[in-house]
Amino acid sequence: MNKVAIVSYGNTKFSRDDKPIESLLLNSTKSLFDNTPNLMQKDIDTVLVSTNDNTKYLSAILSEIAGIQPKTAHTVESLCNSGTNSIVSAYSYIASGLANVVLVVGAERKNSPGQILEWDNSRGEYKHPIFWGSIFTKSHKREFGTTEEDLARVSAKNHKFAKDNPNAYSNKVFSIDELMNSRVLTEDLRVSDCSRSCSGASAVLIASEQVTKRFTNEPVWIKGIGQKTTSAGFTKNNSFSSMRSTVEAAKISFQMSKLSPGDIDVAEVHDAFTVCELMAVEDLRIVSKGEGRSFVKTLYETEDRKINPRGGLIGSGHPLGATGIAQVIETTQQLQGTAKKRQIQNAKVGLVHNMSAAATSSTVLILQS
Amino acid sequence: MNKVAIVSYGNTKFSRDDKPIESLLLNSTKSLFDNTPNLMQKDIDTVLVSTNDNTKYLSAILSEIAGIQPKTAHTVESLCNSGTNSIVSAYSYIASGLANVVLVVGAERKNSPGQILEWDNSRGEYKHPIFWGSIFTKSHKREFGTTEEDLARVSAKNHKFAKDNPNAYSNKVFSIDELMNSRVLTEDLRVSDCSRSCSGASAVLIASEQVTKRFTNEPVWIKGIGQKTTSAGFTKNNSFSSMRSTVEAAKISFQMSKLSPGDIDVAEVHDAFTVCELMAVEDLRIVSKGEGRSFVKTLYETEDRKINPRGGLIGSGHPLGATGIAQVIETTQQLQGTAKKRQIQNAKVGLVHNMSAAATSSTVLILQS
Repeated sequence: MNKVAIVSYGNTKFSRDDKPIESLLLNSTKSLFDNTPNLMQKDIDTVLVSTNDNTKYLSAILSEIAGIQPKTAHTVESLCNSGTNSIVSAYSYIASGLANVVLVVGAERKNSPGQILEWDNSRGEYKHPIFWGSIFTKSHKREFGTTEEDLARVSAKNHKFAKDNPNAYSNKVFSIDELMNSRVLTEDLRVSDCSRSCSGASAVLIASEQVTKRFTNEPVWIKGIGQKTTSAGFTKNNSFSSMRSTVEAAKISFQMSKLSPGDIDVAEVHDAFTVCELMAVEDLRIVSKGEGRSFVKTLYETEDRKINPRGGLIGSGHPLGATGIAQVIETTQQLQGTAKKRQIQNAKVGLVHNMSAAATSSTVLILQS
Repeated sequence: MNKVAIVSYGNTKFSRDDKPIESLLLNSTKSLFDNTPNLMQKDIDTVLVSTNDNTKYLSAILSEIAGIQPKTAHTVESLCNSGTNSIVSAYSYIASGLANVVLVVGAERKNSPGQILEWDNSRGEYKHPIFWGSIFTKSHKREFGTTEEDLARVSAKNHKFAKDNPNAYSNKVFSIDELMNSRVLTEDLRVSDCSRSCSGASAVLIASEQVTKRFTNEPVWIKGIGQKTTSAGFTKNNSFSSMRSTVEAAKISFQMSKLSPGDIDVAEVHDAFTVCELMAVEDLRIVSKGEGRSFVKTLYETEDRKINPRGGLIGSGHPLGATGIAQVIETTQQLQGTAKKRQIQNAKVGLVHNMSAAATSSTVLILQS
């Protein structure tokens, strides 16, 4: 089996500006080529696009405008974890020998059709993600005594960290008090508890062991892959204070990597809502169940960037199809020691947690330098 | 590397009836379960949906309504060769060791948004596929002396073969004269030269060598995979009488399989228009360039089903995301000896040719019993 590594990336700023999907895809691809002097278009065997955009044939369109003539080219969609799904596909194309070099580009426009669960008509107005965010929040409060202050602290931390992320959507820092007074959306959620849909694109280059040296001296290896889809409707969850798909995906990923939660130096977790960061660190077994809030309090007070160093979805913005790719890029930078102000000292093992639709599907990747 | 085989399938009738995409997906999945007595939902590691439908998260939705909780689940889109793209992904998930059993389901509604090249605004009315079909036809006529009768014969043959395909859209047989008098669409195309978009769904079960015996005694092995995307706009083709992506995909696929065009007993080729069948048999090197029309004449006169035994896209209908899967199912039935009235004697090696958007992308699969 070929070993598989992340060998380069291209990042663009996440913003409210609306741009054509083709421009978003191309800009992050250009940034990737700029970061990879030895990369030629003809090196790329496979082009995968991660998006919820309704435009068809985007992988062929991107290939044409970027001057690439790949073997395999298609779009991958799974709502908010489209990005890591496309990275897992890239891994499998390389590990199976069908490709040596895969370009994965995620992009989304701010008004992406993937934001609302249109397919579930039975939910009425409860189609909007803030309703599952509210139910998770209420449940976590009830079960673990999580407070509004605990939730605001997640948001404050992630906005603080995002200030050092030049590609983040937000560059404002807020006090916990300010956030606790932000606009009320539901009984359990304020606007500051929510990540924001926005425009953005991110690209990674993934390669087989025998060619990594052409592109980087610091390959970041994909060591663990875990995925689980438990349902399409979150009401089938056994619990609303735990994300079963995340628990199961983490188990599979740790088993494949032969690593354990204690080995993780840095993690990008899917904070679609503030409560999701608390649930994620618990469900990934980075801390015990119920200890998320005290763990995040310590991180906030000590400015420890172990969780969501780029500012998470709440600070960086959430362009659906790009999010999983951006999480992988941040982890790659951390493991390569190139994260500048965001750098965690001596990070060797990183984890990416990316999920969809009320955590009905999760991906957990484990990366190692 | 794990060996990978097609081990079961589920077919549904292609028709003009409009049905929800979820029903189409589920019906073909049910048919697959009916055909596979030993298959349990928990056996399925990965669910891939092939479609151009704009509904998001269809792989999770199908999984939930079919009672499956897969690891990996996502949608694959590449216009008309979405189907074989998803089969290639299934192969790579299994060959790389990420999965043992993959369910691939392709489905399309008759009014699929993938029919028109909406992304290329510069084409004006020429967005509609009949215009590239016309240009290919004019070019093939000019270069090889192809006549209206040669084209009508492709349509007559495929309608004749479709009569024995219980899932075909069309069950009418036409004389060459009748077809040569069908409605004129452009200077070079009649309505009988065109495949029809329709509703339909097809499902296949793909498995690793170590588990094939649980599902079938007649696995059909995926021996060759070739794909090429040359552009997104067909005007970049070097020639309009040859499909470069098909030529290159075939080369890659034959090389991987260590087989040659002379080994092919049966082929499903992508006859989006009548001229495409002539071009395909030539570009796949089943016959020399320019000999497609005399080859098809012999097939028609001798009722030899070597090319498009189920009636091709012209006879069977073309529900975009399902087409590549349906082609693989037909080839599987031929190689298992279960194609009934359509059966080619002693078929051992089959080829599937599936393409997108004026042959700007092609997939060539080689299957062996």
